[in-house]
Amino acid sequence: MSIQGKNYIGYALSAANTKTFQSYVPAQNIHLPETFHPATPDEVEDAMVKAEAAFDVYAALPASQRADFLVAITEEMMAIGDELLERAQLETGLPMGRLQGERARTINQLTQFADLIREGSWVDAKVDTALPHRTPAPRPDLRKMLVPIGPIVIFGSSNFPFAYSIAGVDTAPALAAGNPVILKAHPAHPGVSDLTAQAIGKAAHRTGMPDGVFSMLYDDGYEVGTALVKHPYTKAVGFTGSFKGGMALYKMAMERDEPIPVFSEMGSVNPVVILPDTMAAQSQSLAQTLAGSVTLGAGQFCTNPGLVFTVQSAALEGFEKSYAEEIKKVASATMLTEGIQSNFIKLRDKALAESGVEVMAMSDVESEGQNQSQASIARVSGKTFMQNPNLHEEVFGPFSLLIVCENIEELQNALAHVPGQLTCSLMAQENEAAQYPHLIRLLARRAGRFIMNGVPTGVEVCPSMHHGGPFPSTTDSRFTSVGRDAILRFVRPQSSQDWPDSLLPEELKTATR
Amino acid sequence: MSIQGKNYIGYALSAANTKTFQSYVPAQNIHLPETFHPATPDEVEDAMVKAEAAFDVYAALPASQRADFLVAITEEMMAIGDELLERAQLETGLPMGRLQGERARTINQLTQFADLIREGSWVDAKVDTALPHRTPAPRPDLRKMLVPIGPIVIFGSSNFPFAYSIAGVDTAPALAAGNPVILKAHPAHPGVSDLTAQAIGKAAHRTGMPDGVFSMLYDDGYEVGTALVKHPYTKAVGFTGSFKGGMALYKMAMERDEPIPVFSEMGSVNPVVILPDTMAAQSQSLAQTLAGSVTLGAGQFCTNPGLVFTVQSAALEGFEKSYAEEIKKVASATMLTEGIQSNFIKLRDKALAESGVEVMAMSDVESEGQNQSQASIARVSGKTFMQNPNLHEEVFGPFSLLIVCENIEELQNALAHVPGQLTCSLMAQENEAAQYPHLIRLLARRAGRFIMNGVPTGVEVCPSMHHGGPFPSTTDSRFTSVGRDAILRFVRPQSSQDWPDSLLPEELKTATR
Repeated sequence: MSIQGKNYIGYALSAANTKTFQSYVPAQNIHLPETFHPATPDEVEDAMVKAEAAFDVYAALPASQRADFLVAITEEMMAIGDELLERAQLETGLPMGRLQGERARTINQLTQFADLIREGSWVDAKVDTALPHRTPAPRPDLRKMLVPIGPIVIFGSSNFPFAYSIAGVDTAPALAAGNPVILKAHPAHPGVSDLTAQAIGKAAHRTGMPDGVFSMLYDDGYEVGTALVKHPYTKAVGFTGSFKGGMALYKMAMERDEPIPVFSEMGSVNPVVILPDTMAAQSQSLAQTLAGSVTLGAGQFCTNPGLVFTVQSAALEGFEKSYAEEIKKVASATMLTEGIQSNFIKLRDKALAESGVEVMAMSDVESEGQNQSQASIARVSGKTFMQNPNLHEEVFGPFSLLIVCENIEELQNALAHVPGQLTCSLMAQENEAAQYPHLIRLLARRAGRFIMNGVPTGVEVCPSMHHGGPFPSTTDSRFTSVGRDAILRFVRPQSSQDWPDSLLPEELKTATR
Repeated sequence: MSIQGKNYIGYALSAANTKTFQSYVPAQNIHLPETFHPATPDEVEDAMVKAEAAFDVYAALPASQRADFLVAITEEMMAIGDELLERAQLETGLPMGRLQGERARTINQLTQFADLIREGSWVDAKVDTALPHRTPAPRPDLRKMLVPIGPIVIFGSSNFPFAYSIAGVDTAPALAAGNPVILKAHPAHPGVSDLTAQAIGKAAHRTGMPDGVFSMLYDDGYEVGTALVKHPYTKAVGFTGSFKGGMALYKMAMERDEPIPVFSEMGSVNPVVILPDTMAAQSQSLAQTLAGSVTLGAGQFCTNPGLVFTVQSAALEGFEKSYAEEIKKVASATMLTEGIQSNFIKLRDKALAESGVEVMAMSDVESEGQNQSQASIARVSGKTFMQNPNLHEEVFGPFSLLIVCENIEELQNALAHVPGQLTCSLMAQENEAAQYPHLIRLLARRAGRFIMNGVPTGVEVCPSMHHGGPFPSTTDSRFTSVGRDAILRFVRPQSSQDWPDSLLPEELKTATR
């Protein structure tokens, strides 16, 4: 399959811009030959007009046909074969095993949404039949279900070339629900985006989807994203990335004549609290598990544990020693982009230079390749942590801060300075945890997912997963980006009153219930 | 029961402000003797601090105890007896029959939410048990349910002294879900608000609720509302009223350091489309039904049909004649406030003065009392309607515009100028409607509730009711303010990973499932 480098505007290819950019290979610090054309304002308009026109047709298709489309995407992605993985590896520097796993997860997500809409009960149909003889007033026939809302703009993310990009956690549910998707490809992996867009295009053709059900546009700047979010046809936005980027899109969407929902998944420091009995009983295994979680994927996960809280205790010294040894052993790894790598070094060094912060360990093992991370952990007192807001911020990459408090009360006070999070973890024995209901409430109020005796990395794709925490970890804690409930972001309920069966959607007809 | 005129700050009464205001009686153009004290900044702070402290206690109570509290509110409200209705009538000018019905609806809402939380399945618990031997990675135990979010600020509305005020559609679900409520009473009916707040206070005492679970503050200006929305402890806002007021609160909430959801239900013109076969078959009954809907409650409903679209046809003249006759027969009625009445006259006269607008009829029957409405209908061509955006705006009160289009195509073009609505109605025969799928899609995209052969007034309280349409009718079309799903506005999902039964909430324990 060859990379086109052109914008996919429904079924048409377009490259009106004379300006181009190229893929960067972070491990080699080189650029690949193919050129990519950022979309022009006219191309943005064309994609939106096609999406709006496609909406009526696509939303009215039987769910089984939309499910066929999703399954066809998985087939076309797999048909590309190793070329897709190899291009992803070049563009992201991520290891092959991780990319294979991420592709499998992406295929799984698409398949799960195909199954969900084939089964159909997700639309949450509710029926109250008429009571024509009720007094004082008769009741009309009322039926309610979830309906799609219109064109959805999705931003590919840098850290997941498959699972949070072209055919990922936002696209799959948006398409499943019956909405057209306009994707802004992330400039860090345009080639893998291009190949995936071709797979979606082939799948759409093969299953007879309307022109405009999917478009993908390039940009290595902010113009295309801005134009898409501001476009009057856009009805919702999905984004995963930095706090700054997510909030810029959010504010833009709120300032429209018609404000629209923005689902920004932004930073999270995923606090882990270790209680003293557990520290005493498991200091070795805690050190290993934590070090593994801090450094997984070069720390480039939104669930990376950036803050670890504990109290002074006899076992602490042994834990610190083991934790430091584990971190030293972790080989450095190529980070996703030059910018992410330099930003990691800058923010880590800034944190380490803050008054009262002691370096505990840095990775000793250097790997081959450019743009390397270097896992690092540091230690600070509860008092210093509370006094210095700079220490509350996320350092994206393999860095974590151990906050050692005088006692549980100080730990609770320190936690009160921590805002909303995707996850919070409590490392505690069952009877030990039961002694601290206030601590549990403090963590629970901050957590989208609340974990006992586990690290935050590893996000299961299943119905009971909630991946979305209170602000600032996301802009809307009521919705998840992972699991089947992710579809709820791209629909609204609608009541139908007194419609005859012949004009009701299938899901609400008396005849088919 | 005597009216206190003081702010209800949890269980404490407080009247720190030397400034006061009084109830206005719209039908008599007089003020009642009791004085009400707008809350001071310190009183706002006290109410918020109490609410925040109450949250942990209240949210952790068994659902059955919160249900007892809701039922106790209904008992205490009924125990006030006719005094409550009489005060409401003085302050709103609404007829006694309507107020009795509205009180019954309010009691019914509270009872429905008590039943809902006693039954319990609304929390949507989902459980995926651990798969410790799964390869390549084990699955943790994951459980998810809806949890309350914290203090909720609610604004009483002018047009429903019970159903959308102190113990109304926002308060009932917010309390049911486990959130404390801070209410800003509407200055148009402070006395009925005061009596209702006393009923809630008694109910809270009697059922052992924590101090701060409910507070009610007065203000006849904007300061208290602004301070409440901006307060960092506030986690969501409920409002029903004008577009201007709703958007001001929305923008304020978006500009906070931590943006919070605002559920503003704002204006709606609830378009009604009459197709020609139906016009021919039912012009008389259509005229009667429409006139009844336009003038119900002096037109002071968010579901008032402000725009009626039809096409030129032989039966049109007969319909117009009957419609005009019906409107002339409707007696005028006292409006809710002096401001609402003068605004109605101003906006109606402005609409009537627009070029191309012809008056069809005005009510001939004058009632006793001050601040009277005068039902009015007017007519305009489709072309004029499209060219003049002033005609697309809501006139709050008994006014409706008939838009006569050349043909269905022009009618569709005219509808494209109409934004999101709480409701849209189509008056059509079944086989006639089936000929116009594009028209149906145009209406459906704009409608929260889509009605066939019915008028928009009359909002059933039942599971399949969705009362919330696309912007600008509300700020969040994904949520309803009426029916049991109204509780979804004040919760978020949360996952619990690997927690032992002893520390899980009742709803997620293995033992109790």
